[in-house]
Amino acid sequence: MNIGLIGLGKMGYNLALNMKSKGHDVAATDVNKEALENIANEGVKTFTSNKDLVDSLPTPKVVWLMVPAGDITEKVMDEVASYMTEGDIIIDGGNSNYKDTLRRGEKMKKLGIHLVDSGTSGGMDGARYGVCTMIGGDEEAFRHVEGLFRDISVENGYLYTGRPGSGHFLKMIHNGIEYGMMQAIAEGFEILEKSEFDYDYEQVSRVWNNGSVVRSWLIELMEDAFKKDPKLESIRGVMQSSGEGKWTVETALELQASAPVIALSQFMRYRSLENDTFHGKVVAALRNEFGGHAVVKSE
Amino acid sequence: MNIGLIGLGKMGYNLALNMKSKGHDVAATDVNKEALENIANEGVKTFTSNKDLVDSLPTPKVVWLMVPAGDITEKVMDEVASYMTEGDIIIDGGNSNYKDTLRRGEKMKKLGIHLVDSGTSGGMDGARYGVCTMIGGDEEAFRHVEGLFRDISVENGYLYTGRPGSGHFLKMIHNGIEYGMMQAIAEGFEILEKSEFDYDYEQVSRVWNNGSVVRSWLIELMEDAFKKDPKLESIRGVMQSSGEGKWTVETALELQASAPVIALSQFMRYRSLENDTFHGKVVAALRNEFGGHAVVKSE
Repeated sequence: MNIGLIGLGKMGYNLALNMKSKGHDVAATDVNKEALENIANEGVKTFTSNKDLVDSLPTPKVVWLMVPAGDITEKVMDEVASYMTEGDIIIDGGNSNYKDTLRRGEKMKKLGIHLVDSGTSGGMDGARYGVCTMIGGDEEAFRHVEGLFRDISVENGYLYTGRPGSGHFLKMIHNGIEYGMMQAIAEGFEILEKSEFDYDYEQVSRVWNNGSVVRSWLIELMEDAFKKDPKLESIRGVMQSSGEGKWTVETALELQASAPVIALSQFMRYRSLENDTFHGKVVAALRNEFGGHAVVKSE
Repeated sequence: MNIGLIGLGKMGYNLALNMKSKGHDVAATDVNKEALENIANEGVKTFTSNKDLVDSLPTPKVVWLMVPAGDITEKVMDEVASYMTEGDIIIDGGNSNYKDTLRRGEKMKKLGIHLVDSGTSGGMDGARYGVCTMIGGDEEAFRHVEGLFRDISVENGYLYTGRPGSGHFLKMIHNGIEYGMMQAIAEGFEILEKSEFDYDYEQVSRVWNNGSVVRSWLIELMEDAFKKDPKLESIRGVMQSSGEGKWTVETALELQASAPVIALSQFMRYRSLENDTFHGKVVAALRNEFGGHAVVKSE
């Protein structure tokens, strides 16, 4: 089918190639001229403005947004909608907060435009060769683009999750689970590294991925990482996060759902960003006050 | 090779069938007469005493223990060793605490007997059709039985981890990671269940297992579980544990290794065993004392 793709970042660029390889007629645009040139060299039709891109599409128009979550998504969505007419479809394939998606869905509905929210997992390789998609939105709109999702996803790797927002919500929870799984795996290696034994972590990851209970894509990725750097000496343990773990914890609080391990995984990421902490100073000060325990002085 | 197997519980029984199907000459014994009869009907040679079993084996004798961790393992190992001579091999395939394994390894060494510790993962199906094994012990002894491990494990599913105890230690950490991963997955479904959306959890598990970052054997198992019982209405959320998570946390404390998510996963299991808690009463009492907040009375 004809599809307009806005956003040629790491995910969008690979999705464009994925769609094209499955025979879809992809037109793309991005503010980054280099990405645009590169994708043009791959045979993808390109436009330098969102308007020209949308105007080029047959009706009903289908535009896939793959831009950073937040204000940029909102701005681009509003602009794209202004070039559309009733019955057209916008797919937000980014990591939007599901509350934004709920609100935007209502806004688009008033214009007669369908908003389809697709939580998109699988990393860059997935985007290129087969992604995992969790798709919310009006069923009518979903059915119109189902073939596209079937084509770009791995086998059995797409799911229509129901009403608008449910795709992004499910993707958010997926990421929350991911945070907890990653922290659990990481703590296991932490203990191994401090133990009296001497393990080859690449081999440990390899054996765990063959028949054990913790077999998982994440441990497959660790096998690759340990192959490149057996003790991860080249990187520091600074754990960034991109918002979805935080939203999962916020959502758990709103719903009064008990999710302490996911919350703690998020807090451990914040802890990792600091070389020293104020809470550490407070505990040290208290130990000194009541017990005269020595403190480590600031340098 | 000739192998004596002691212990025909869920894991041992299936291991016996696995070994036999790979052409090994298995002799088995168990105090459970029914298991013994059943395995005899499968064509496995059986004995009603450990002594007769060990006596039946050619030299160097190889005996696999698959009995409950703790005193039973110790008792059976000592008995088996008393029927052995220098150069014979005992494989402890159970979930023994690695500290017991270190101590028993020394004890066996004094008798000239090799103790090989095998952490064995993969559940009953794994035991039957291909297990994951993490194997510690003297290299000489390991090389003697390596073919057996290769045969009963899935492809690439066995690893020699080095000196005695390292197999059971690695299996312990594996289980600690497993606890954290399980709790993270469980919390994700907890939030989904309390959300405003209506998901089919079998389908959610299915899509997550095809191309997503949380793809894992544990979520494959959830797909099966949700297929049988879409909302798990037939079971209560009581989370038992069998020791290895606790040992992982104890080990983390001894090594001063930070492993809060694994520790919290263990504590959440304990919490799940109680309908009411004393800490809950304490917090309720304090809120009442300082703020006059109402308490829920015991019935």
